[in-house]
Amino acid sequence: MEKEKLWSRFQKYFLAYDDIGFSLDVSRMNFEDSFFECMESQVSRAYEQMKELEAGGVANPDENRAVGHYWLRNSSLAPDATIKKNIEETKKAIEDFADKIHRGEIKSSAGLAFQNILLVGIGGSALGPQLVADALGSHRDALEIYFMDNTDPDGFDRIFHRLENRLKETLVIVISKSGGTKETRNGMLETQSFFQRKGVAFAPQAVAVTGEGSELDEVAKKEKWLARFPMWDWVGGRTSVMSAVGLLPAALQGFSIQEFLAGAAKMDAYTRVSETKKNAAMLLALMWHNAGKGRGEKDMVILPYCDRLMLFSKYLQQLVMESLGKEKDLNGEIVHQGIAVYGNKGSTDQHAYVQQLRDGLNNFFVIFIEVRKKRSVSSPEMEPGVVSGDYLNGFLRGTRQALYENGRESMTISIPELNAFYLGALIALFERAVGFYASLVNINAYHQPGVEAGKKVASVLLQLQQKIYAGLQSGQKFTVAALSDKLQVEPEAVYSLLVHLASNCSEVKAANLLEPARATFCWIKESALK
Amino acid sequence: MEKEKLWSRFQKYFLAYDDIGFSLDVSRMNFEDSFFECMESQVSRAYEQMKELEAGGVANPDENRAVGHYWLRNSSLAPDATIKKNIEETKKAIEDFADKIHRGEIKSSAGLAFQNILLVGIGGSALGPQLVADALGSHRDALEIYFMDNTDPDGFDRIFHRLENRLKETLVIVISKSGGTKETRNGMLETQSFFQRKGVAFAPQAVAVTGEGSELDEVAKKEKWLARFPMWDWVGGRTSVMSAVGLLPAALQGFSIQEFLAGAAKMDAYTRVSETKKNAAMLLALMWHNAGKGRGEKDMVILPYCDRLMLFSKYLQQLVMESLGKEKDLNGEIVHQGIAVYGNKGSTDQHAYVQQLRDGLNNFFVIFIEVRKKRSVSSPEMEPGVVSGDYLNGFLRGTRQALYENGRESMTISIPELNAFYLGALIALFERAVGFYASLVNINAYHQPGVEAGKKVASVLLQLQQKIYAGLQSGQKFTVAALSDKLQVEPEAVYSLLVHLASNCSEVKAANLLEPARATFCWIKESALK
Repeated sequence: MEKEKLWSRFQKYFLAYDDIGFSLDVSRMNFEDSFFECMESQVSRAYEQMKELEAGGVANPDENRAVGHYWLRNSSLAPDATIKKNIEETKKAIEDFADKIHRGEIKSSAGLAFQNILLVGIGGSALGPQLVADALGSHRDALEIYFMDNTDPDGFDRIFHRLENRLKETLVIVISKSGGTKETRNGMLETQSFFQRKGVAFAPQAVAVTGEGSELDEVAKKEKWLARFPMWDWVGGRTSVMSAVGLLPAALQGFSIQEFLAGAAKMDAYTRVSETKKNAAMLLALMWHNAGKGRGEKDMVILPYCDRLMLFSKYLQQLVMESLGKEKDLNGEIVHQGIAVYGNKGSTDQHAYVQQLRDGLNNFFVIFIEVRKKRSVSSPEMEPGVVSGDYLNGFLRGTRQALYENGRESMTISIPELNAFYLGALIALFERAVGFYASLVNINAYHQPGVEAGKKVASVLLQLQQKIYAGLQSGQKFTVAALSDKLQVEPEAVYSLLVHLASNCSEVKAANLLEPARATFCWIKESALK
Repeated sequence: MEKEKLWSRFQKYFLAYDDIGFSLDVSRMNFEDSFFECMESQVSRAYEQMKELEAGGVANPDENRAVGHYWLRNSSLAPDATIKKNIEETKKAIEDFADKIHRGEIKSSAGLAFQNILLVGIGGSALGPQLVADALGSHRDALEIYFMDNTDPDGFDRIFHRLENRLKETLVIVISKSGGTKETRNGMLETQSFFQRKGVAFAPQAVAVTGEGSELDEVAKKEKWLARFPMWDWVGGRTSVMSAVGLLPAALQGFSIQEFLAGAAKMDAYTRVSETKKNAAMLLALMWHNAGKGRGEKDMVILPYCDRLMLFSKYLQQLVMESLGKEKDLNGEIVHQGIAVYGNKGSTDQHAYVQQLRDGLNNFFVIFIEVRKKRSVSSPEMEPGVVSGDYLNGFLRGTRQALYENGRESMTISIPELNAFYLGALIALFERAVGFYASLVNINAYHQPGVEAGKKVASVLLQLQQKIYAGLQSGQKFTVAALSDKLQVEPEAVYSLLVHLASNCSEVKAANLLEPARATFCWIKESALK
C-alpha cells in the first residue's frame, strides 16, 4: 500500500523534458498536494517579475541595473540592438581568438604556441571557469588551465613554481568586472612581477576581461595587452559564466561554447512556461520554500553522483547564498533571508557526512544529481554481470531510500550525460530557480550589499598598518596600549596588526608576542640586523 | 567604551600556547562569563571519558572497541605492549619503504623509479591523504599523487588517461580498513584491469593498507603485492590520517611524518589539561555547544585564510558530522544530534557566500584560521608599503569585524606557519574537540551506524538489477508495471533500474523512457543490433 502510494506520487511529481532527456523528481519532498495552490499569488508574481527581468526591466533596483544573463544565450531577447550586437560580437571575437590560438596564429612573444592558461580572478570571475574546466576537462584539452583566486602570497608562489619553466607558453587571463577587485589586482601585479623576474614580457601574453573603462581596462589598454574582452554592468559576477568570463577560457580549452549556450537556452525555454508543474525551475524554488518555510530553515545539500560535478555544489553555494542571503526584502523590511548550501559528490560523501544526514539533525534537504550514462567505453566486470557504474547508480538510489526511510527530504535531477550542453542546462536551471525563489520571498537576488563592509574595514586596517609601521620606526619600544593611545585607535586592531607585522617584516621585532597585555614591539634597521 | 570592553574581553578569552605560537580567540562568540560554570558537570565528565579513552577503555561501546588515534602520535600511551610495538614498527616500516622508493632501491617491475602514486580509497581512507597532499605539497614533492575516491567509471577513466603513459612509474596504494568497501574494491579492480590492458604487471607496483586478514589483505597476499601495511580496529577511518593511511602517502611524497606526529602530540599534551580556560579543544567544544545550544542549531563555517587549508573544511565536515551526527545518545534516547559543517577559504569566500553570512540568515558561527607568516620569500609591493599578504590579513580581520557588527559569532585560530607540525596540531585539536563535544551531549562519537542503511538498499538493488536484466532477456517487451508484477517488487525501484540499464547497456532498448507509466523496455541481442 505504502509502496503503491509512493509509485503514484512519483508519477505525479516526476517532471521530464523528453526531447533533452532531463527529469526532476520531487516526489520525496514533504509537501502537500495543496501547497501549489497556497503559493499561487507569489508564484504568479514570480513569473511576472521574471518576464519583466528578461524584457530588460530594472530587476536590481538598489543598483538601478537590468539583469541580462538570460540574453547571453539567446541574444534575440536582448532589450535593444546594441546589447544584442555586443553579445554576438563578443562571442564571435572569443571564437576567433581561441581559433587563432589553437592554430598557432597567435603565439607568445617568444614565438611559441600557447599551452597553458593562468586565470586570475575571484568569486564570480573564477568559480564559473573552475566548474567548467573540471566538469568538461580531459587529457585532450587544447590548453591546460591554472587558477589564482585569492590574495594568498604562498598560493601565488605555488602556481608560479608549477608554471616556472613554461611561462613563455602561458596565456594570462585577468578577469574582474569592476576592474578594481583587490585580490585580482594583486594576482595580476604578482604575475607581472614574476614574468619580469623571469625575463618574459607580460603584456603580449595577457588578456583582460573587464568592464569598458575600468581600472583594469585602462591598464590593459595602456600596456598594450594581447586582447581585451568586455563585461557589462547588466551581468552579475555570479551569473557571468556565459559571458566572456566563462566563454573565453572554455573556448580556449576547446569546449563547445555553442553547446554550452544551447543547453542553457533550451532550459530557459522550458522554464519560461507558467504552468508550474511543467516548470522545473519553479518546482525547485517551491520545494526550497516548502522545506525551509520560506525562511531558509533547511540547508540545501547538493549531491551529484558524478566526479565531474564535484565543484557544482561550490558553484551553487555562491549562486544561492550570495543571491538569497539578504538582510532586507524589497519593501525594506528586515528579513535575514538565505539558504545555506553545501555538498560535494556521491557516493564519496556517503563515507563522510551522510551519517549525519540519515541519523542526526534533520536540518536539510538533498538535491541528488544523476548522470544516467556512466561511461562511454566498455567496463570491466566487478562481479559477474555487475560493473562499477551499477554501484554508482545503486548507491544513489540506496541513499535516497535510506534518507526517505528516516523522514529526510530529497529530490533528484537526472540528465542523460554530462557535456557542455547539459552543464549549461543545469546552470540555467538553478539560475532561474534562484530568481524565482527571490520573488517568492520578495527580495532582490541581484545585489550583494553585505560584501562591502568587510572590504571597508580591511581598507581602514591597511591604512592603520602603515601608520603603525611608521610609528614603530621612531625606534621606541611599544606595548599595544602605548601605541594605540598614541594613534588613538582601538587596541585590538593595533595588536592584530602588530602581530601581523612581527610575523612578516624582518625589521619588526616582538617580545611576548602572544600575550596581548605584555607584548612589546620595536623596529630594528635592516642594516643593524646583519 | 564598547571598544574598551572588547579589548578586555579579547584579553580574557585569548588563549595562547606560547612555545608553539598557537592561539585561539573566542572573544567574539556570544557566551556569558557564567557559561563555564553552568557546564561544569558535563565538562568534568568529558575530561573523565577522554582519560578513559586514552587509557584504552571501550570508548565505542556499540562496536565494543577501544579508540586509539591518540596513541598513534605517542605510542607510550598505548594500553599494551603489542599495540605500542605495532605503532612503532609500522612507522618504521613506512619510513624504510619510502626511503627505499626515494633512493630507487625499490623500483617498478620495468626497473623504473616510481614517480607517481595512485591512491585508491574513500572517506577516511582518502580525505586525510588529500588534505595532507594539498596542505604540504609543492613542486618539490618526491612523488606526485593522484586519487580515486569513488565508483564513478568516468572518474576512473579521467585518472587513467592522465597516468596512461606513466603506468610503469606509478605506485598504487589501495586503502580500506575493512578491506571490503565496494567503491575501493571497484577502484582496485578497474586499476588492475587497466594495468592489464596496458601490459603492465599490477602486483609488483601495488601496496595495500588494510586490516590483517581482510578481503583486501588476502588478495594482496595471494597476488604477492609489493607491500602491505596494517590498519587496526582501534583506529576509526575519520581519525586514521596518523596511521599508515596518512603516513604512508605522506612519507612517499617526502613530507616529515615525524613533524606531523610531533605537532599532534604537542597539541594532545596541551589539550589534555583539565583547566578549561587553557584547553583549546574544550574551549572549541564549549563554543560549539553554546552557539548551537547543544543541539547543533548553528552550522559551523570553516574559513582558513590560506590556500593550502582549502580542504580542511571538507576534512572537518567528515570528522565532525560523521562523529556527531547521531540518532541516539549513550542512554539510547533519540536525540538526532549533529553540527553541519561547510567552508572553503578566505578571502575567496568573501566573494561568494559571505554576503549571506553577514546580511542573511544568522544560522552559523565561523571558525577563522589564520596562518601568520604569509610567505617565505620577499614580496613585490602592490602599493607603496603594502604587499599581497597584508591584504590577506586585512580581509580576515575585516570580515571578522563586519560579521561581529551584525551580531554574527566567530572565533579565530592562529598558527605561525603551515607545515607538517602545524597541520598535525590542527587535526589533533579538532579530533579532541569532537571527542569532548560528544561527551558534552552524551553520544558515541566513534561509530557510524547510519551509513549501513544506504549500502544495504544498494545491495538489494544490485541483485534486483540482475533479475531485471535476466527478466528482459526473455525477449518480451515490458512496461514497468508488468515487470514489477512479475518480479513482485515495487515499481519505482524497477523503473529506476530499467532507466539505468537502458542508459548503459546497448542491448536494453526503451521507448518513452521518461514516461514512467508508458515506458516500455526490451532486450535485443547484440548480434541483432549489428
